[in-house]
Amino acid sequence: MTGALECIFCKIVAGQIGCLKLLDDEQSLAFLDIGPLAEGHVLLIPKRHFETLAEMSGELVGRVCDHLPRLSAAVTRVARADGCNILQNNGGVAGQVVPHVHFHIIPRRSGDGLGYRWPAGEYAPGRADEIHGQLEQALKDLA
Amino acid sequence: MTGALECIFCKIVAGQIGCLKLLDDEQSLAFLDIGPLAEGHVLLIPKRHFETLAEMSGELVGRVCDHLPRLSAAVTRVARADGCNILQNNGGVAGQVVPHVHFHIIPRRSGDGLGYRWPAGEYAPGRADEIHGQLEQALKDLA
Repeated sequence: MTGALECIFCKIVAGQIGCLKLLDDEQSLAFLDIGPLAEGHVLLIPKRHFETLAEMSGELVGRVCDHLPRLSAAVTRVARADGCNILQNNGGVAGQVVPHVHFHIIPRRSGDGLGYRWPAGEYAPGRADEIHGQLEQALKDLA
Repeated sequence: MTGALECIFCKIVAGQIGCLKLLDDEQSLAFLDIGPLAEGHVLLIPKRHFETLAEMSGELVGRVCDHLPRLSAAVTRVARADGCNILQNNGGVAGQVVPHVHFHIIPRRSGDGLGYRWPAGEYAPGRADEIHGQLEQALKDLA
């Protein structure tokens, strides 16, 4: 059992719900987002059910992301876009609606009103080093 | 020569500009973003210079993205966040400022004011099938 019973993406993987499929291999599925931010907005998912990226192995994430260059080029071309965003949300607070890992490929054109809010800040003196040390420790703990 | 002379990320890779390094392997480098959207905002880059994802091989993107699960878990933990966004911008129109591929790992907390704008639309009857057909063709052409 690799799917979650109530998960819409697992149902798409199982063929119980249709999709406009673009790519289908052992690990990955890509299809058109039918509630798009722009024409050509595509979703790329692992076939197995994982709620967030942190639950997946690096190897599996790598296999799924292997498709990103070609998908991003195709989406940008078909949408006659000037660029694109790759976005992957982990957690409801981060904007994740379907709790099955998915990468959005979102074509971008000037004046489209899309994009990530960007109120960049800066660290108080010494604070970046503190955060860096904590991240180093967390990465060791998670190794 | 794998770097671009004027690229700030190539200079970081070459050690000509310092960074608060978190991870360093043959293909990839991760370090603290010093103009963060939130404390713990991290950047993950390929060491070789590519302007956009579409210029990279799937294999190399996969090797870089192999680090995303552990980085996303560490960032979320250290920031005491409830989730995170992975964001990768291709093109100035998509919000890319440094023209060297980079993945943002952005911790998210309730009420932080961050996130992607989400004016989701829908396709007119028949239009999703048209776009799907065009994407299938583009993916074939790009294979």
